Amino acid sequence: MDNYLDYYKGRRVMITGGLGFLGSNLAIRLVELGAKPLLVDAMLPLYGGNLYNIESVKDKVTVNIADIRDAGAIAHLVQGQDVIFHIGNQTSHLDSMTDPLLDADINCRGNLIFLEAVRQHAPSARVVYAGSRAQYGKPVRIPVLETDATYPVDIYGANKHAAEQYHMIYHHAHGLWATSLRISNTYGPRHQMKHARYGILNWFIRLALDARPLTVYGTGQQLRDYNYVDDVTDAFLRAAATDKANGEAYNLGSDQSEQMSFAALIEKVAMLAATGAELVSVPWPDERKAIETGDFVADCDKAKRDLGWHPAVKLDDGLRRTIDFYRQHKEHYW
Amino acid sequence: MDNYLDYYKGRRVMITGGLGFLGSNLAIRLVELGAKPLLVDAMLPLYGGNLYNIESVKDKVTVNIADIRDAGAIAHLVQGQDVIFHIGNQTSHLDSMTDPLLDADINCRGNLIFLEAVRQHAPSARVVYAGSRAQYGKPVRIPVLETDATYPVDIYGANKHAAEQYHMIYHHAHGLWATSLRISNTYGPRHQMKHARYGILNWFIRLALDARPLTVYGTGQQLRDYNYVDDVTDAFLRAAATDKANGEAYNLGSDQSEQMSFAALIEKVAMLAATGAELVSVPWPDERKAIETGDFVADCDKAKRDLGWHPAVKLDDGLRRTIDFYRQHKEHYW
Repeated sequence: MDNYLDYYKGRRVMITGGLGFLGSNLAIRLVELGAKPLLVDAMLPLYGGNLYNIESVKDKVTVNIADIRDAGAIAHLVQGQDVIFHIGNQTSHLDSMTDPLLDADINCRGNLIFLEAVRQHAPSARVVYAGSRAQYGKPVRIPVLETDATYPVDIYGANKHAAEQYHMIYHHAHGLWATSLRISNTYGPRHQMKHARYGILNWFIRLALDARPLTVYGTGQQLRDYNYVDDVTDAFLRAAATDKANGEAYNLGSDQSEQMSFAALIEKVAMLAATGAELVSVPWPDERKAIETGDFVADCDKAKRDLGWHPAVKLDDGLRRTIDFYRQHKEHYW
Repeated sequence: MDNYLDYYKGRRVMITGGLGFLGSNLAIRLVELGAKPLLVDAMLPLYGGNLYNIESVKDKVTVNIADIRDAGAIAHLVQGQDVIFHIGNQTSHLDSMTDPLLDADINCRGNLIFLEAVRQHAPSARVVYAGSRAQYGKPVRIPVLETDATYPVDIYGANKHAAEQYHMIYHHAHGLWATSLRISNTYGPRHQMKHARYGILNWFIRLALDARPLTVYGTGQQLRDYNYVDDVTDAFLRAAATDKANGEAYNLGSDQSEQMSFAALIEKVAMLAATGAELVSVPWPDERKAIETGDFVADCDKAKRDLGWHPAVKLDDGLRRTIDFYRQHKEHYW
């Protein structure tokens, strides 16, 4: 497990959503490891794609602007890839409720187009799919286990789960190599900071840096777990390099000692940003209340066991790094 | 519960897939109960739609040919409906693997178009969705419970489950009335008999009536449960008339005494048809083996408890009625 980083030297690695938050952080890490990343991104307006994300490695990666729904482009691009980190999807819970057809078009149809391309043109590629805690919706218990039944509360969650199932079906029926990582609240550098429609934790970092009120819905007492982006990219790197991960889904989440209420996390953001921004409680907007899951924390023992993964970056450290990054590169994200 | 049949007198009831197997049997029952069925069907080639299915009630129902993906038509048709039995979907496991995009187009996109129409134009209609045992895929235990995690083995199963989740999401977030019935192997009059791509039990009835070899894959020892169509339509009638069913999913299946291996069931079909057709074991074709779930029987206690439902028609009786029907009306189904 310790030599999983060596796995990437000279590998051909494709990342869908490669110019977004997770994709670009993964690309930077892959360049350090000696891989040759191909970054595929649709650059949809208001999604996470941002060329500045890869500024530091722009000469060491290949960028190809294409949507996963573009069957011809994807069929061409997957050819010859050793590993595909499949991250490019619609990611807003809220948007999935106001425009459910768009969510299904990207996250159902798009994922099938992607998988058909892999089946036909790159059947030996190792695919790691970016799943989501949204697949569970309201958890039947906490911490939630990978084997628990799923009750998504929004169309995004239903479709993210369907798409994970597509991957597992293609694994069992067609022999594709597929792993899913069910990602929780992730924060860090290179997230879009323009709106609050997804990636709410990063949005609060912006509010704090702007010294604006940190408007929390209700009491904010819902328990959550949080991952710094480097820990999530580490899980992707481990997954594709681990034979045992083939056909498996894994929860990602905090160490138990770092699980805390959303309000406590926001207090911490305010404290570390030190701009005088204060937490303000406001009533839940109807459209957010309708898709709220209550307490949610994940049991990550399976990822620890199979992948040797654990979240290494402490919240205080991760938040400080994030705040420093956006202070320094604000003009490219605000 | 006993007066659920009275609920339908004078009701406006729409059935999607209304000219198909379940839809037409339900329509005939609704006419008997004094309802006014509107039968909406896309009449896609090789699907179950058949005008002869409603020959006996053709003057007492309204037929409207339209696809659930036709947003304008569906928005118009749902208006003023008290109850909507939503049955019209892509139903072939096999086809969902050879043409996954079509399955997603009907069963994901189409269901969202349908639900958006209900949300906007018939928000108080009671919707009963035809779910499927395919949602479970390989069951984690048998008999399988509604609360068990789902591991679909084909795209059909993944999308049927996503669509059930859409219904529940629209229930919780938008207040729609929604129930799902997870239907098992159903047989009876008015099923399409032209091919074996879905409704395999009915196909064997045809083979027996044609005195052709009853080719069972492998040993046929997988345990299954079976419902006569009248029992399934009874569950639909009970569901929409039962307040408690709102927001719930229910398994349908055999009484335990009538669960048996697929081979035993086929032996019974051969015996009752009495044409001399014999069971022949052939190797599993790859494309069927890839999506086979092994033993599957459902725990139906929840439907018994909440809906007062139980499968009333014994296998011998149901199979006899089915065989008689097709002998009499063969020209319209062969």
